[in-house]
Amino acid sequence: MHVEYALGLQARIIKPIPGAKVSSMNFYFDYSSPYGYVASERIEEIATRHGRQVHWCPMLLGAIFKVTGAAPLTEYPVKGAYALHDFNRSAREYKLDYVQPETFPIATVAAARATLWAKERTDPDSAEKTAALVHALYRGFYVDTRPINEARTVVAIAGEVGFDTSQVEQAIGDTTIKTRLRQDIEAAIELGVFGSPTIEIDGELFWGSDRLEQIDRWLTVGGW
Amino acid sequence: MHVEYALGLQARIIKPIPGAKVSSMNFYFDYSSPYGYVASERIEEIATRHGRQVHWCPMLLGAIFKVTGAAPLTEYPVKGAYALHDFNRSAREYKLDYVQPETFPIATVAAARATLWAKERTDPDSAEKTAALVHALYRGFYVDTRPINEARTVVAIAGEVGFDTSQVEQAIGDTTIKTRLRQDIEAAIELGVFGSPTIEIDGELFWGSDRLEQIDRWLTVGGW
Repeated sequence: MHVEYALGLQARIIKPIPGAKVSSMNFYFDYSSPYGYVASERIEEIATRHGRQVHWCPMLLGAIFKVTGAAPLTEYPVKGAYALHDFNRSAREYKLDYVQPETFPIATVAAARATLWAKERTDPDSAEKTAALVHALYRGFYVDTRPINEARTVVAIAGEVGFDTSQVEQAIGDTTIKTRLRQDIEAAIELGVFGSPTIEIDGELFWGSDRLEQIDRWLTVGGW
Repeated sequence: MHVEYALGLQARIIKPIPGAKVSSMNFYFDYSSPYGYVASERIEEIATRHGRQVHWCPMLLGAIFKVTGAAPLTEYPVKGAYALHDFNRSAREYKLDYVQPETFPIATVAAARATLWAKERTDPDSAEKTAALVHALYRGFYVDTRPINEARTVVAIAGEVGFDTSQVEQAIGDTTIKTRLRQDIEAAIELGVFGSPTIEIDGELFWGSDRLEQIDRWLTVGGW
């Protein structure tokens, strides 16, 4: 009731309501995005501090770039060289391991579908397991240089965090999951998402791992 | 001596040397860049805190985009809408006035040339006057919606901060200044500059007004 009131009154300025139930924070990302990896390692701490839960929203930048006309960062002259330097520097600041993958960017459709499937499970520990899967896939790629573009690597990693591998394998090829992912990406674009990571807080979008401090300030003061 | 030693030893990790002379911080910007405006209002405070002086480096994104293949932010579908929202939100966070100009982006060659001319003056107060000119041009455009794409507006604003208007008028059309600006832009691209603002600290580049806190941390700990 109080939450609805605050939201309805002024969409951009959300005051934290004492005693309100935990609300979410949507984290849109592509597994091929180094900035997505860096932010994925820090977002839960920020969310938790503000009584929010991270809702993992896998997406495919390739599909988004078709709409926006953008290209993978590393393909731009000059900007690409900066990006390669900055991926590493961004990770180093937060003491995160980071190895620039030789094959980059990669297709992440299998990883995205597996994640979408995981987060739709209804077992009591599915939220924790989905978060574990996101981290394991990202670290698999950016720390251990595992080829997460391959479905079998995704299945293996999902198994390592406790999912049933045969179920995951089936999910990656499942028509419903394929359709759902496409619809989710279309909805994300409709919302205004164009890059990875994008964090959505009550309709407000923040793009980039370098906006996490701003998100922290935004949630602290209730927006501006 | 000590400064050279620290720089030579490990280019990326610059330790502040007690007693070293004030060093600079290069601020590359285009007057048509809202993020350049936002950062211009905050960079001097950060520089001063770390014993550095801001060296204003006007450039033209149009010339850079020819090399990088990028386009003005607002021309990208989806991303453009985010940018328009974020320009204002970025300014609001720091209590800066911001009015989205109706004509945007604009040609800023006259403003860039005037600034380049100003910073090459050798009168004792030229550094202060150049900084004043940068702020007056940016605020003229983003606060008072003055058409700084027009040479006469640039000349008028330069006069308001204490420059000789006839000298400024002449400088805007001067062949040496034209050539110098083109060379400066080429050198900036060579260095790795591709967007506005880009802040260079001892060879390390930071792109975006959202990196000022990171710059502050970088200078505080001496890099990572």
